[in-house]
This record gives sequence, C-alpha cells and structure tokens, in this order.
Amino acid sequence: MNLEEKQLKKEYMYKGKIINLRRDEALLPNGKTAIREIVEHNGGVCVVPLDDDGNVYMVQQFRYPYFKVVTEIPAGKLEKGEDPLEAGKRELKEEVGAIAQNYVFLGELYPSPGYCGEIIHMYLATGLSFCDTDPDEDEFLEPVKIPLKTAVDMVLKNELADSKTQAAILKAYLLMEKGE
Amino acid sequence: MNLEEKQLKKEYMYKGKIINLRRDEALLPNGKTAIREIVEHNGGVCVVPLDDDGNVYMVQQFRYPYFKVVTEIPAGKLEKGEDPLEAGKRELKEEVGAIAQNYVFLGELYPSPGYCGEIIHMYLATGLSFCDTDPDEDEFLEPVKIPLKTAVDMVLKNELADSKTQAAILKAYLLMEKGE
Repeated sequence: MNLEEKQLKKEYMYKGKIINLRRDEALLPNGKTAIREIVEHNGGVCVVPLDDDGNVYMVQQFRYPYFKVVTEIPAGKLEKGEDPLEAGKRELKEEVGAIAQNYVFLGELYPSPGYCGEIIHMYLATGLSFCDTDPDEDEFLEPVKIPLKTAVDMVLKNELADSKTQAAILKAYLLMEKGE
Repeated sequence: MNLEEKQLKKEYMYKGKIINLRRDEALLPNGKTAIREIVEHNGGVCVVPLDDDGNVYMVQQFRYPYFKVVTEIPAGKLEKGEDPLEAGKRELKEEVGAIAQNYVFLGELYPSPGYCGEIIHMYLATGLSFCDTDPDEDEFLEPVKIPLKTAVDMVLKNELADSKTQAAILKAYLLMEKGE
C-alpha cells in the first residue's frame, strides 16, 4: 500500500524563537488534498546521568505549557546544525554540574509525530565527575538524585510524565540489565 | 527554591484544526519577564493491543512532519472533553479492527513539555477480539503484528522512534514481567 504524501503548498504561519509553525497543503495517496499543520523545531538532546552508585540525576523545572513543575532528565535544544552529543555534554554540565567519561546512544525520539517535527537524541552518560552547575540565565532548576531502579518505578507508577524521561530511563535500565 | 512563573500576557498567533499556537509573556521567579511559545492540543490517546499469544498490533503511516513512514501503536486525538479510554477504544477499533475486554492505564505522557501542552493517555489492551478496521477517511494505515518481546528489542535498537510507542511498549513489558 502506498502511504506517501506530497507537498503541494508550504506556508509559514509563525516564525518564533524556539518553534515555527507551517500550514501545508498535502496530496494524499488517494489523490485528495489535506491541510497539514507542522511545528518545526531544531531538535533536542537528553541525557540519563548515571553515577557509579546507580543514582540518576534529574531536574525539576516549571513547564509553562502545563503550568506546573515537571521532573525530567537533563535536556536542551540543539543550536542549528549542532552535534547532539556535544549539546548533551553541555546540558549535563549546565544543569547537573557533571562531566561524563562514557556516552551510550539510546536512540532518537519523535515526541508527537502527527504535527511535530522535533527529534530528541537520547544518551546514557556514565563515569561521572562533578563540578559547579552553570544554568542558562532565566533557567530555574531544582536537582533530584535517585536510584535508577526508583526512577523506573516512578515511570511505571505514572510519576514521571515527560516522554524523553520515560523512554530514556526505561531504555537505560533494560540495557544495563542486559549488561550492555 | 521557587520555580513558578506567572502569565502576564496571552496572545494567539494561530488557531488551527489540530493545534493552536500562543505567544505569552511570563513573569519569572527572579522578577524578569520572558516570552513563552506554547502549542495547544486537545490531548491524545494510545493503546498497546496485546493478544493472547503475546503479539502487539501497530500501524505504519506517513508522518508529514518527518516526511516518512513511522511505525506506531494505534493512537488518536481526543475530541474536546472526550474521555481518553473511550477514545482509545474507538482508535483500537478504527485502526486495528479490535475490541478489548481489559484495559490497564499505563500513565500520561508529556511529548515535549518545553513548548507543547499535549497530554497523551496510554493504555494496555488485552482480551482482544477482531472485527473489520474502520479508518478515518483520508487516513492510510498499514498494519504490523509482532511479538511484544520483538517490539521491546526494536525500541532498544532505535527502530521505533515514536515517543508514546517507546514508553507504552516498555511499560507494558515491564508491568507484564512484574505480573501486574
């Protein structure tokens, strides 16, 4: 079955600081047309920082779209063309105050593929050493340190809602279990 | 540490079919102000359909923001005020052609909390019986049936990028393992 769509028209409705919004006209496989609303984003990175004692480091921050504090693994936006791993190292240092000896790629994450084009690159970081945090100006973070197993239980109990945090924590746990 | 922000101004830049885009001015904990770009969405639902032989049912579809075919568990948007479980039952029938006897809530998912307000409600569905699929007009889906364990391996090998699919498949697997 042919699933492919074609771009017939492309129009920017908004160009912003973090996201752009496009409203395209697409040609469907059945020859009809449809409107597609697309959020453009440079992409992101997130890191599961795991220390030698099996603890994970996360951060709590106010997330304006939900108007509440959300607990997440350290993460950030990519600058245009930035290497995801370099961005991950930067965010780990800024938000947790840590430097890691080893990085394992945990895969890509598409947050909401129906309308959003963001790709989040996920990493597991081990061999941690600690320095001072260096958050962005106007970034307010509260650190959280918990055992990886507890973080897994929190995901299973619906206590960590962020998608990248759920996926990366569970993947890190299952990969560690498999001894990889 | 106070992390809370306050809404000072609210302005819609776009009101669309699936998403709206707001550009707010927020008051930060340090007394400064910042612009917040927010994608509004009614919310979504997704279902891990697991049959008595341990197979999971997924669908492949063209995802316009990535301009490629993506494999995902069945899912859909909520109508305004719609009960997530009822929406999950509808999507399971429409996309997979299945009815489930048992539903287990797998938690909420925040796809990209920095700018997006969508909440996706996740369910595990068991006790499946099958009827005809009934996809939305202009929805083109290719079904996929694979063992849950294979789906888990695909998540770990970066072969399933969709965030709700990664989180819900791994959660379903870990909960089954714990015998819940």
